[in-house]
Amino acid sequence: MKKAVCLLSGGMDSTTLAYEAKNMGYEILALHTRYGQRTEVKEAECAKKIASLLGAPGFTEISLSHLLAFGGSSLTDAGMEIHDHEDLEEGLPNTYVPFRNANLLSIATSYAEAKGAEAIFIGVQASDYAGYPDCRPEFVEAFQHVIDLGTSDDTNIRLMTPFVNMNKTEIVRRGIELGVPYEHTWSCYRSNGPACGRCDSCYYRLEAFAANGIPDPIDYE
Amino acid sequence: MKKAVCLLSGGMDSTTLAYEAKNMGYEILALHTRYGQRTEVKEAECAKKIASLLGAPGFTEISLSHLLAFGGSSLTDAGMEIHDHEDLEEGLPNTYVPFRNANLLSIATSYAEAKGAEAIFIGVQASDYAGYPDCRPEFVEAFQHVIDLGTSDDTNIRLMTPFVNMNKTEIVRRGIELGVPYEHTWSCYRSNGPACGRCDSCYYRLEAFAANGIPDPIDYE
Repeated sequence: MKKAVCLLSGGMDSTTLAYEAKNMGYEILALHTRYGQRTEVKEAECAKKIASLLGAPGFTEISLSHLLAFGGSSLTDAGMEIHDHEDLEEGLPNTYVPFRNANLLSIATSYAEAKGAEAIFIGVQASDYAGYPDCRPEFVEAFQHVIDLGTSDDTNIRLMTPFVNMNKTEIVRRGIELGVPYEHTWSCYRSNGPACGRCDSCYYRLEAFAANGIPDPIDYE
Repeated sequence: MKKAVCLLSGGMDSTTLAYEAKNMGYEILALHTRYGQRTEVKEAECAKKIASLLGAPGFTEISLSHLLAFGGSSLTDAGMEIHDHEDLEEGLPNTYVPFRNANLLSIATSYAEAKGAEAIFIGVQASDYAGYPDCRPEFVEAFQHVIDLGTSDDTNIRLMTPFVNMNKTEIVRRGIELGVPYEHTWSCYRSNGPACGRCDSCYYRLEAFAANGIPDPIDYE
């Protein structure tokens, strides 16, 4: 059976993507990373549950807590405030973790090469909330080139980003078709539960469910 | 003062490179990674000593031991044998750690972006011992492109590989000019001391010193 490494954060996008991978016939190697974000306990719990529901033969959890030590992001720096969606920010959102997706993709590629997987699924979206540079399609293409050059000649690993040009409303619509159990996913940047409903991540999640005319099954403050 | 992240393994190449960076006027942010290799204790000790001799304001040590858990390399897998230089291997050396340099460069880039460093020095060499795919100049160029696309628009980080087209003899020659204290460096794949003198890494190190007509100051079996 062909194998795929799925980066499973426990959020809405990566969970829907893992169901898509399963639907495409892949056996799922679930890879979850903590990096010291405020909601890491809840996200890990969700990711583990989803991996089990997907029948993934393994669930690998990795700490990237050194990204916390470097500082510079409100997701990992307790001294910085997470803004409400309505508070406008200039430039990069302060939830940006410097070069996070390259770190995730590097680990996923090492894992895929060691395990003989032929695909890596990552839930990046170009039209996602404002301006994370490491979510652009050009970034993903450039990383594919690094994979092609930096792995053994016998290795063929494809980065799969079927949702890169979809918005969250379209992702939830696809997830409903695939039967994704959204009650076991987590998006809030602030809290391990109930969700705050006001940070960027909650805002876009709620909007996506509303646009599909169905209620979000998780608890909100 | 302009800052550079230097990936400092504790080996001969990265140490010489850090002295080159210092000579170019950079303040050194030393970044050392363990990944469960057999000689990690000795390498960390050497890297720390070198950082201190270079007057680096910090020494950051990071564990990539998950690369150990993935398996597939004799450097980290106690069940696999490290070959002597004279035992010919087909294809990739079994000391290959899948996609290791991309993992190192991703962490270094996160660190550089968080700290405002404008350069990253990594001691890769194209003409190094046989065929690690993630040591090729094309790999480094491709990764530079990923950095340019995956970091903030305000960030400008250059990958510096001044030794990429040099061989070990030339590196040692340059190191002698720069006054590199090679007694505080470590290369052996097998042992935390004395060095085995027979693995690939020892073989090429000894050859480089011999070609320069000076003795290697470390202890051998």
